[in-house]
Amino acid sequence: MNSNIALLIIDMQNDVVEKLPLAPGIIPGIRDILDRFRTVKKPVFHIGRSYRSDGTDVELPRLEIFKEHGFRIVEGTRGAEIVEPLKPLPDEYVIIKSRWSGFFNTSLDLLLNRLGIGTVVITGVQTPNCVRTTAYDAIAYDLDTIVIKDCSAAMTEQVHEYNLADMANIGVQVMLKDEFFKQFESVVMK
Amino acid sequence: MNSNIALLIIDMQNDVVEKLPLAPGIIPGIRDILDRFRTVKKPVFHIGRSYRSDGTDVELPRLEIFKEHGFRIVEGTRGAEIVEPLKPLPDEYVIIKSRWSGFFNTSLDLLLNRLGIGTVVITGVQTPNCVRTTAYDAIAYDLDTIVIKDCSAAMTEQVHEYNLADMANIGVQVMLKDEFFKQFESVVMK
Repeated sequence: MNSNIALLIIDMQNDVVEKLPLAPGIIPGIRDILDRFRTVKKPVFHIGRSYRSDGTDVELPRLEIFKEHGFRIVEGTRGAEIVEPLKPLPDEYVIIKSRWSGFFNTSLDLLLNRLGIGTVVITGVQTPNCVRTTAYDAIAYDLDTIVIKDCSAAMTEQVHEYNLADMANIGVQVMLKDEFFKQFESVVMK
Repeated sequence: MNSNIALLIIDMQNDVVEKLPLAPGIIPGIRDILDRFRTVKKPVFHIGRSYRSDGTDVELPRLEIFKEHGFRIVEGTRGAEIVEPLKPLPDEYVIIKSRWSGFFNTSLDLLLNRLGIGTVVITGVQTPNCVRTTAYDAIAYDLDTIVIKDCSAAMTEQVHEYNLADMANIGVQVMLKDEFFKQFESVVMK
């Protein structure tokens, strides 16, 4: 862990959290980490997804589903807003993406580079999609990459577990929040 | 499936295939698909990974392993060459990447776009890493994306299966080679 560290909170938006039964349970843990970052004034990135109401930027397989069942996570709607307990402060970074990875067609890499960030801590949903693609890209960009196991979630515990195992195999550090806090205290708050 | 279709063969290089027990078994199937694409003169992309011998471009967690156990897939060595049965022809595309996704820091998107490709067919190794990240990026770039189940491989059948399930969930079409040939015949060879 590098003391130049940033927190990434992924897709904790109303429309996402309300559709994913295991997501509400991780809100308090993410809030704990968020509070810790705010206390030591380390950068926080709220990464979310939102779509145009005309659907032009929706990935094609999802567009079919949206047409059938109604659009979700549309920009400007309550569904696209970050859940109340994790609302960004004015000086925190908000990154809007229209695909899975927080790095895909966004300025995330540029901002992390400018801030001299060496370590990213990833939390949020869902483990197999936005969490995982962001973690793979973070490693690809030579970032020391941590995923907090009890602050991320998938549709099932099993999907969560096997995705974390794949990430650990390529060098992502998968750890529990308490374990992370121990390292955070010794490296960042020392 | 779109008749503007390209075949992507990922990481079927000596150093990769020799370390992955399930990889040699998929060579004949990939060769079948490759022959079919050559017959109808549809574009083929041989996507491989190679590293500088000084390690500057190796992802950091792997660099540690390489330092301990020796470098692999080094440019200009036999290990980085594509396995004999799948050797590229002079008019086929060869894309060298240093991370997982075939799209990451390469010209793959630009070339597919110039060729007007609507559908990509992904084969090769390993399912959780280079195959999966390439498939996610392909969907992200609005490509109709097919992964051939019996022409891709992971360390174990279980890892292979659950990664294919995750890909299917985001809209990747996962199919067996024979099923693919049926569609290919009706759409491309008609």
